[in-house]
Amino acid sequence: MTSAISTIGFDADDTLWQNEQFFRMTEKQFAALLADYASADHLMERLLEAEKRNLRHYGFGIKGFTLSMIETAIEVTAGKVPAAVIGDILDAGREMLSHPVETLPRVRETLEALSGRYRLVMITKGDLFDQERKLAASGLGDLFDAVEIVSDKSASTYRRIFARHGDGPERAMMVGNSLKSDVVPAIEAGGWGVYVPHDLTWVLEHVPEPEGEPRYRKIAGIGDLLPVIDAIG
Amino acid sequence: MTSAISTIGFDADDTLWQNEQFFRMTEKQFAALLADYASADHLMERLLEAEKRNLRHYGFGIKGFTLSMIETAIEVTAGKVPAAVIGDILDAGREMLSHPVETLPRVRETLEALSGRYRLVMITKGDLFDQERKLAASGLGDLFDAVEIVSDKSASTYRRIFARHGDGPERAMMVGNSLKSDVVPAIEAGGWGVYVPHDLTWVLEHVPEPEGEPRYRKIAGIGDLLPVIDAIG
Repeated sequence: MTSAISTIGFDADDTLWQNEQFFRMTEKQFAALLADYASADHLMERLLEAEKRNLRHYGFGIKGFTLSMIETAIEVTAGKVPAAVIGDILDAGREMLSHPVETLPRVRETLEALSGRYRLVMITKGDLFDQERKLAASGLGDLFDAVEIVSDKSASTYRRIFARHGDGPERAMMVGNSLKSDVVPAIEAGGWGVYVPHDLTWVLEHVPEPEGEPRYRKIAGIGDLLPVIDAIG
Repeated sequence: MTSAISTIGFDADDTLWQNEQFFRMTEKQFAALLADYASADHLMERLLEAEKRNLRHYGFGIKGFTLSMIETAIEVTAGKVPAAVIGDILDAGREMLSHPVETLPRVRETLEALSGRYRLVMITKGDLFDQERKLAASGLGDLFDAVEIVSDKSASTYRRIFARHGDGPERAMMVGNSLKSDVVPAIEAGGWGVYVPHDLTWVLEHVPEPEGEPRYRKIAGIGDLLPVIDAIG
């Protein structure tokens, strides 16, 4: 049984705990702050453009998101945005960085059932500092054998992580809510990919589901993970 | 010889390559942008206060620094700073995130001499994404056995890293330009600490030199590291 799964990677944001909802809430505040200058739709379009453009400078995370909101506020107002509004955006960003951590349903029981039987690795991108805060606040830290906070999630990222903490990607599974970052590159690396959709997933994380891929699985919630793993063996 | 050193950790910013000089250059630009509103001294004082205050939200790095500059600009102008100035601050921050990497004198030859004989680990804090960029641009990546980008550098950080990549802190040495982050906590963890002062070191990294500490060394530049290691054995 050398092909049996020995190591399971879990994405964190919107897989273990709520995340995107805080971005959406902040986007609503942002739209309200700039309602005199731009429609919400137009504003969101411009914000997404700024986020895309800045990804190569800022990477993923709340600090880069805050900087992109400020940039967009200046743009859509043609430089007329009052400093007080920029101050409000700064406050909104800081609020996100201290939001409470809300674990998703059945996450803890599932991790507890797997811990000890498999090597569990949390694999997440975003701000290092913020992700560490959330892991600590989640109380899930002790259930993981390792934590990897990475700047991007590509096939080579998974090859490296599953070689480091497991028996290589062939005996590893990655579980997450992003087809683009969690599922597709893990399968490309030679591992299994389990897709757990979340109602809110950032549009830049959208790619089509893999077709005819024997190492791909989709489940409705993380509570359905155990039978999937048992069936693979 | 179980006490012989097997693993050497290197700080990155201002130990392997220039870093603080880019912050100082940006601070000068920042002072020029706000010259109509505040003296440079007063501005720097307020900026440092904002940085200290925000450390628990933002951690270390350029993105947090940019956000603190924006906050300070709003504060010192009592909300009168024009949006165009905020835009200039955003530009200055983005420029820092793409500054060229300038390796310090004799860094490469020293790492080449040690690589293979010792396990070499780069240990740095700051923005994950930015530190990875700088390591790639430095061309030094292949000389390290491991890279650890951490949110903070405490004694427990060094215990964990030197257990993971070496034979524990007793057989490890940490080399860096910050007494507070590199030298003192590595010694506290049970390892050796080598202080390589840099002309520019952030004021929040200043603490007194250890006194009467047998595992403490100070060198003028990283080129003086080899004889120190050879003398310890």
